[in-house]
Amino acid sequence: MKLTLITLFVLFTASPSVAQNKLQLEVRAYRQKHEHQILKEFVDLLSIPNVASDQPNIRKNAEVIIEMMKRRQLSPRLLEAKSTNAPPAIYGEWTIPGAKQTLILYAHYDGQPTDPKQWHETRPWQPVLRSAALETGGNIIGMPSPNTAIDPEWRLYARSSSDDKAGVMAILTALDALRSAGVKPTSNLKFLFEGEEEAGSPHLAEIIKLNHELLQAEAWIICDGPVHQSGRKQVVFGVRGDTNVDLTVYAANRPLHSGHYGNWAPNPAYVLARLLTSMKDSEGRITIAGWYDDVEALGETERSAIAEAPQYDNQLKTQLGLAKTEGEGKTLLELINLPSLNVNGMSSGDVGALARNVIPTTATAVLDLRLVKGNDYHRQVQRLTEHIRKQGFYIVERDPTPEERQKHPLIAKLIHRSGGYNAERTQMNLPISLAVIAAVQSTSPDRIVKLPTSGGSLPLSIITKNLKTVTITVPIANYDNNQHAENENIRLHNLWEGIETYAALMTMLH
Amino acid sequence: MKLTLITLFVLFTASPSVAQNKLQLEVRAYRQKHEHQILKEFVDLLSIPNVASDQPNIRKNAEVIIEMMKRRQLSPRLLEAKSTNAPPAIYGEWTIPGAKQTLILYAHYDGQPTDPKQWHETRPWQPVLRSAALETGGNIIGMPSPNTAIDPEWRLYARSSSDDKAGVMAILTALDALRSAGVKPTSNLKFLFEGEEEAGSPHLAEIIKLNHELLQAEAWIICDGPVHQSGRKQVVFGVRGDTNVDLTVYAANRPLHSGHYGNWAPNPAYVLARLLTSMKDSEGRITIAGWYDDVEALGETERSAIAEAPQYDNQLKTQLGLAKTEGEGKTLLELINLPSLNVNGMSSGDVGALARNVIPTTATAVLDLRLVKGNDYHRQVQRLTEHIRKQGFYIVERDPTPEERQKHPLIAKLIHRSGGYNAERTQMNLPISLAVIAAVQSTSPDRIVKLPTSGGSLPLSIITKNLKTVTITVPIANYDNNQHAENENIRLHNLWEGIETYAALMTMLH
Repeated sequence: MKLTLITLFVLFTASPSVAQNKLQLEVRAYRQKHEHQILKEFVDLLSIPNVASDQPNIRKNAEVIIEMMKRRQLSPRLLEAKSTNAPPAIYGEWTIPGAKQTLILYAHYDGQPTDPKQWHETRPWQPVLRSAALETGGNIIGMPSPNTAIDPEWRLYARSSSDDKAGVMAILTALDALRSAGVKPTSNLKFLFEGEEEAGSPHLAEIIKLNHELLQAEAWIICDGPVHQSGRKQVVFGVRGDTNVDLTVYAANRPLHSGHYGNWAPNPAYVLARLLTSMKDSEGRITIAGWYDDVEALGETERSAIAEAPQYDNQLKTQLGLAKTEGEGKTLLELINLPSLNVNGMSSGDVGALARNVIPTTATAVLDLRLVKGNDYHRQVQRLTEHIRKQGFYIVERDPTPEERQKHPLIAKLIHRSGGYNAERTQMNLPISLAVIAAVQSTSPDRIVKLPTSGGSLPLSIITKNLKTVTITVPIANYDNNQHAENENIRLHNLWEGIETYAALMTMLH
Repeated sequence: MKLTLITLFVLFTASPSVAQNKLQLEVRAYRQKHEHQILKEFVDLLSIPNVASDQPNIRKNAEVIIEMMKRRQLSPRLLEAKSTNAPPAIYGEWTIPGAKQTLILYAHYDGQPTDPKQWHETRPWQPVLRSAALETGGNIIGMPSPNTAIDPEWRLYARSSSDDKAGVMAILTALDALRSAGVKPTSNLKFLFEGEEEAGSPHLAEIIKLNHELLQAEAWIICDGPVHQSGRKQVVFGVRGDTNVDLTVYAANRPLHSGHYGNWAPNPAYVLARLLTSMKDSEGRITIAGWYDDVEALGETERSAIAEAPQYDNQLKTQLGLAKTEGEGKTLLELINLPSLNVNGMSSGDVGALARNVIPTTATAVLDLRLVKGNDYHRQVQRLTEHIRKQGFYIVERDPTPEERQKHPLIAKLIHRSGGYNAERTQMNLPISLAVIAAVQSTSPDRIVKLPTSGGSLPLSIITKNLKTVTITVPIANYDNNQHAENENIRLHNLWEGIETYAALMTMLH
């Protein structure tokens, strides 16, 4: 194992102090005593639909969280965008007399849209406990009666049970545990719970600008995402940027009988298939000109951290049922340091029982572009656009006119969805970075994982661009939480550990 | 213009006799007097959902048609399959004392499945009149009150308004018109209305075998499909065979976050796109080995008929908004004499508002294989299967096991849907063929179109394989009827003309 200076330093500072160990045990005792109560409060919160575009329900979520924060004397209030009736951010604070530094603890309370029909037996906003993960045969069990012991391997199934109401819950419960133990945070704490992160945080910049003084801090600690696939806790210093493009190609202006017109009239599914195929080779390398040009190379510290991280690819392949991965032998941790291009969804006509013998009129794909440090999301979309043009497509940003259809054999509509943002990365050797590493390490007997970047995305560049601060992400969810998909869940063990992690973070600065 | 022997003969026999002209005028007068009544009976029939798999409603359709036929003294009864509770065929007859020949008039009363949400303003089984085609700005108009004149350009929107309850309606109304004129058919008439044609006629062979004597006839006249795109009446001597395959490819066994795993975990949409692209070149030529090998070349008569047909491709391209068609310059009529491969539907994950940042677990396409004379549908599916295997796929007929997923990087599930059948073609110079051409020609001032084959499919090979007879198709619907798709409709003018056509056919044999 390579031992760099940083590693040695971290190993040294990471030795858990006696005080930290004592605190962790007190936090654990509090949680063990209040598990039923924590679970009930969490289930109530998860029962409210929380897609950002669902205004009435998003507001209900905010009201419930305000009540949760009031019960904890955090002086909560809504931070509203001025421009529209956007989902509000929720702000709260606990000012510590004499504290010299301030941390902002961030989570988001909105969740990804989901099709309830895709969920297995349960519904997205009707939280249900299972005895284990669905994929390993977990069965539905009722909510435990007050005297029943709660098994930490149980999983709570609901939209946002992991992403990211678990963050709200872990942070607020860590406060309860500190208060119960008579321990004060060692820095001023501010709380920012965002309500439209899954929609791409379109108003976060505005909310930050409107509350510029209020949101100053040494660091924003981001509670979002999963721990390492090995189950080890991790600290993540960066996130990828993200942006989405809706791509639609066109065939005849009405659905045609596939017998009467097939193989004379163009079929949009083939047109889309050919176009997507042109973007990526069979090894998964993106073949769009310039796609990898802007990537900022990793430094020595970051490369060491990746090398030290557990090699988990083979176990992951087995778990996921994959015989082969993309990337010509590169590991997952190496690949998330490159920009990606993925299809999130693809549709043309109908399949299954609704399929019928027609040539559809259009075919659509939703493309997901992930970005790393160095990439600019507008420039990356421009490269995609140029690539499509080079394949012979006439490009529009709305449905083509009859005249355009007559003139151009290949037409693609490209809609660059709003809410894109760039990647962000905090240096791993800043004092605050080392303090976070030490705090998280103090709560774990296993060596924690330190990553230069997560594969996932958060609008952290919005924070660092508008405030002089850094962001460090300390995730708590199990990695197999089906985040963003149907059957999202959290393993209770991860929520319990997350509470301990956040109590340690609240008391880490001296 | 090339004048072949056949053409000359047809032109000669096609001269409308005085008797035929008189009959046509009488039929027209009957229709003009009874338009409101015809429309009402039709709307009632169209109001019953008629997807073959919807047993209760399919039976309701059969009951209503039985009542319609009883009113016309056609001694109707159900012909049931023995094996299952399949949609019944409906049989009826009108025996003419002294008649030496028998015709069977065929139509089907089931319709393609459809997603009601895809219909514009109206619903599939709530028939609505529009002032013109939706695509040309037709507005919804109420059902006309008894004294309102009915414009033949109005269109009736409903599932099966064209395909194929129009057939049932035209045939039964032609009988009413004959009776009203005091004219008897010149041959015995039998009626066979099938209830699961759109499901691929899985029980037609069984029903024919169970009623072998009953269903003997000189010819089956098939009322299904559209008239020529130019608006001219047509007689079609063949149909393509048809079969469908559901193709599914696999990625990870659970949906993955596209940031955390994207471009490491394979994306099924790209896998499917690459596979589909391998099947067809950019000119629309199918690149599967042997695809065109079995095609039985057209004879001189058939090639002449195609050459004589109106050249309509350019108008059609304009109407459909197509700048280019497939087939390297071949005409539509040439191309429908080749086997085809089309995507009817394609799906992976979700698009639009439900799209989220995941890597879907599977991608699916529904493939439609059309066949011409010489092709065997099992052999053609075998070629498709071999092609997929040659692209490196491990092929299964159910979801892969965990062991198979671990072992094979590329897995494709192929489900060959039941109900496939081969193409069928009747010689164009048989006496019965010439009689049909003459009868249809007698009702039209324009030269009618004679086609060796339609692009569409009907299970006619099931009929000719099980009975010593021939099939000749005489369609009546407008070509732009959105058959099989949402917003299916019939132009009333076409229904009116269809009644005249069928009255002529009922009196053509002497």
